[in-house]
Amino acid sequence: MKMIDGSCVEFADKLASKAAVPGGGGAAALVGALGTALASMVVNLTLGKKKYAEFEEINKEIMAKALKIQEELLEMVDKDAENFLPLSKAYGLPKETEEEKKYKEETLEKCLIVACGVPVDIVKKTYEAILLHEELVDKGSKLAISDVGVGVQCLRAALISGWLNVLININMIKDEAYVAQINEEIRPLVAKGTKIADEVYSKVEEML
Amino acid sequence: MKMIDGSCVEFADKLASKAAVPGGGGAAALVGALGTALASMVVNLTLGKKKYAEFEEINKEIMAKALKIQEELLEMVDKDAENFLPLSKAYGLPKETEEEKKYKEETLEKCLIVACGVPVDIVKKTYEAILLHEELVDKGSKLAISDVGVGVQCLRAALISGWLNVLININMIKDEAYVAQINEEIRPLVAKGTKIADEVYSKVEEML
Repeated sequence: MKMIDGSCVEFADKLASKAAVPGGGGAAALVGALGTALASMVVNLTLGKKKYAEFEEINKEIMAKALKIQEELLEMVDKDAENFLPLSKAYGLPKETEEEKKYKEETLEKCLIVACGVPVDIVKKTYEAILLHEELVDKGSKLAISDVGVGVQCLRAALISGWLNVLININMIKDEAYVAQINEEIRPLVAKGTKIADEVYSKVEEML
Repeated sequence: MKMIDGSCVEFADKLASKAAVPGGGGAAALVGALGTALASMVVNLTLGKKKYAEFEEINKEIMAKALKIQEELLEMVDKDAENFLPLSKAYGLPKETEEEKKYKEETLEKCLIVACGVPVDIVKKTYEAILLHEELVDKGSKLAISDVGVGVQCLRAALISGWLNVLININMIKDEAYVAQINEEIRPLVAKGTKIADEVYSKVEEML
């Protein structure tokens, strides 16, 4: 059974345990999914209201995007666990002989790149979801404005958490081209996403 | 059935829907519980390690506190929904006659104070949990340091989100003594908790 199909209590209990998964990556994906779900909720509380009629179409588009990102982030909870398990096994490989050392090193390198995949996607998707809240702060119902604030805070946490999990992997990956590409593509999203999330939150606070 | 006993996917779907609950408050409590669970996980990955033997007892205490806060925050997910429903009904009360107006006003005031209860507790408990991560950044296994970073980011988001839900209530509550007391007791926890969370996160980033 997938972890996301287990109860919220079970997920928290497993997270608290010494089990290898879920860990910080899975938690980040779930928290990101919750922050994204709040974007859809805000749209749901806005659609059909006269006051926001001019945003009806764009809000529907925002919700369609949010529902897709929510589903993708939820999938990443289990995908991250799947991708992490080979790495946690590779750490246990013997390194007595030269041959074993070489095999372990090569295996670790491959497993690190696999393990880095979901955290990279968490950063990308939470960044996209932050942009949806950025639109909703102006186009969503004022009655649900605090939910934009909560949503964007959850996504900020998930974005930074995804990035932390990218960092621990790229710090050990030897493939310089891969590391350079991640740094170039992902690092700016974290800085920009955090900044936008903080701006959206400030707007929400002012509107309360 | 309690919402936290439903699956993670169901919780996210209900959150995304137009249903009155769960909303931002419930999401905040759940995200706080996940951030707290990560403190227990870090302790679980530290206990029994020679390198951290001197912290064995304090780490066990940290975990005992974390497990209790995790349970409390999980309980708050449903409690927040319970406390919010009377308020959402009170908004629908008629206000045609003077008598109806007076009754609605009095009912709203009572319901707002009830609805404010869980968000206040979310701020208090997530603040306590941030202090646990503050200890773990030095006393927890370096191998799990990124989980301290994720945990503290989730708790930062939950703390601020709890506060947002306090704010929307106290902005409408007329009982000045109650509002003053909340401002005096809770507002400083948010400022201090956010600051500590940011400091803990910076330490984690430096250690990676």
